[in-house]
Amino acid sequence: MSMTITGKVYLVGAGPGDPELLTVRAHNLLRRADLVLHDDLNPPAILALAGPQAAVENVGKRCGKKGVAQEQINARMIEAARRGQEVVRLKSGDPGIFGRLAEEIDALEAAAIPYEVVPGITAGIAAAAAMSASLTDRRKTSRVILVSGHRATKGEPHEKTNWKALAAEDATLVIYMPGNNFAGLRDELLAAGLDTGTPAVLVSRAATPQQQHGSTTLGALDQLPTLESPAILLIGRSLAGVHQRLSAEILALALDETGARVSPL
Amino acid sequence: MSMTITGKVYLVGAGPGDPELLTVRAHNLLRRADLVLHDDLNPPAILALAGPQAAVENVGKRCGKKGVAQEQINARMIEAARRGQEVVRLKSGDPGIFGRLAEEIDALEAAAIPYEVVPGITAGIAAAAAMSASLTDRRKTSRVILVSGHRATKGEPHEKTNWKALAAEDATLVIYMPGNNFAGLRDELLAAGLDTGTPAVLVSRAATPQQQHGSTTLGALDQLPTLESPAILLIGRSLAGVHQRLSAEILALALDETGARVSPL
Repeated sequence: MSMTITGKVYLVGAGPGDPELLTVRAHNLLRRADLVLHDDLNPPAILALAGPQAAVENVGKRCGKKGVAQEQINARMIEAARRGQEVVRLKSGDPGIFGRLAEEIDALEAAAIPYEVVPGITAGIAAAAAMSASLTDRRKTSRVILVSGHRATKGEPHEKTNWKALAAEDATLVIYMPGNNFAGLRDELLAAGLDTGTPAVLVSRAATPQQQHGSTTLGALDQLPTLESPAILLIGRSLAGVHQRLSAEILALALDETGARVSPL
Repeated sequence: MSMTITGKVYLVGAGPGDPELLTVRAHNLLRRADLVLHDDLNPPAILALAGPQAAVENVGKRCGKKGVAQEQINARMIEAARRGQEVVRLKSGDPGIFGRLAEEIDALEAAAIPYEVVPGITAGIAAAAAMSASLTDRRKTSRVILVSGHRATKGEPHEKTNWKALAAEDATLVIYMPGNNFAGLRDELLAAGLDTGTPAVLVSRAATPQQQHGSTTLGALDQLPTLESPAILLIGRSLAGVHQRLSAEILALALDETGARVSPL
C-alpha cells in the first residue's frame, strides 16, 4: 500500500474588499497557506496577508474577459492538495452566495480531497452595512431576497429573472450584478405591484475606498447613475430611513456656501 | 457655547458564535471599547475579547424570558456616547438581518449620536458554510430567501408567514427561528407547489462546539428532530449534495462494525 499525504482545500470568503472585514479565520488561513487561488476582485491589501511561503495565483474571470476555466481551477486545487499543500481558494464576498461554490465542492468530493468552507461577508450585506441600512425591519419587512440581476447559466442562453415572483411589499430585494437597464427593471417591478415610492439604494464597491452610492425611489429608478461594478442595488421599504438621510445629505451639499451643487457621488 | 465630547456607537455583528468568525474590525473594536452591550447569544469566548477597560453588559432578551426593553438599550447607548464613550453594541450574526438594527439606528439618528454599522456573518450563511452547502447553484438556483419562521411584530398578534409567496423551485429558503411545527411547514410548502423530494437541512448552533444537524426531504420534514435554538432550516434544490453526503454518513455509521446504528446527532 502506498502512502499519500493529502493537504486540504479551504474555500474562503474574503468579504467585500476591506481587509478589516475578513474573518479572523480567513486571516489566519491566508497567513499559513501554501497556495492562494484568488478571483480578480480580491484587492492587493488582502492578498498581501498571504505568508512569504505562499504561491498566490489569480484565477479570476471577469465578465467579458478571458479567465481560467472552472475545470482548470478545480484541477489546480486538487493537484496541490494531493501534493500535501494547504490551499486557500479565496472568493470575494461569501463563497456560497453567487460564488460557484457548488461546482468546486462537487469536484473536491469526486476527488476525495478534504475541504472546509469558511463563510465571508457577502457583498449585499456589506453594502447594506456601508449605508447603515437594516435589511429587515420588524415594523415593515419580513424577508430578504438575494438575487442576481444577471443570470449566466452554463451552456444556456441568458435566462430572464422572474421579477414578478420576487416583488412584494414586505420584502427587501438585494440585487447582485444589477446591470444598467434600470428603466426596464423599474417597469417590471412596478408591473409586479411595487409602489413607485419604494426606496432604492445603489452601492458600488461597498467597503472599499472607491465606494460610491446613489439613492432614489422605484418610480425614478432610471435616474440612478451607472456606477462601477461590482455594485449592489437594494430595494424595499426597509431602506426608507437610508433614502431620507441620503436625500438630506444631498440637500445639505446643494445648499453649501459656495453655491455649487455637489453630488455625493 | 458649551463644548460636548461625543463618543460613537458601533453596531457590530458578532457572527454565529465562533470567535474566529468575527471580522477583524469587530475584534479590534471590541478590544478598545469602553462599553460593550451584548445579546444573550454572544458566547463568553467572544465577550472575553473586550479589553480590561470595558464595561460588559448583557442587554439580551430571549424568547419567554424577561430582558432589557429596547428603549432602555437605546437610552444606555446614547447616554454612554454622550459621555464620550466608544460603545460596541454587539449583536449575534449580522445586525441588519433580523437584528432590530433599524430601531437602534432610528434612536441614534434622533439623538444625533455618531454611529457605524459593522457587518457580521449572519446565522443562515454560517449554517450553510458549516454544512458545506452553497446557497446558490447556477445550475439550479437563482435566489436565496432569508425569512423568519417566527414573526413577532411589535404590538400586533403573531402574523403568519406567507409561505405560498416564498416557495419556488429555483429558490433556496433560509429559515431563521424555524420553530418546531415541521409538519405544518411541510404541508404549507407542499401546498405552495414544492416537490416532496426537495432537500432540507436543519442546523442548530452552527459554528459552535454544540453544533447539531439533521437532514431530510420536504415530504419527511416532520421527521426532523427538534434541535436547540438558535437553529436554521435550509430548504431547496441547492442542498441536494449536502443531503446526499449526510445520508451517506448516516449509512456508514449504521454499518459500523459494532452493529449499532449511530446517529450523527
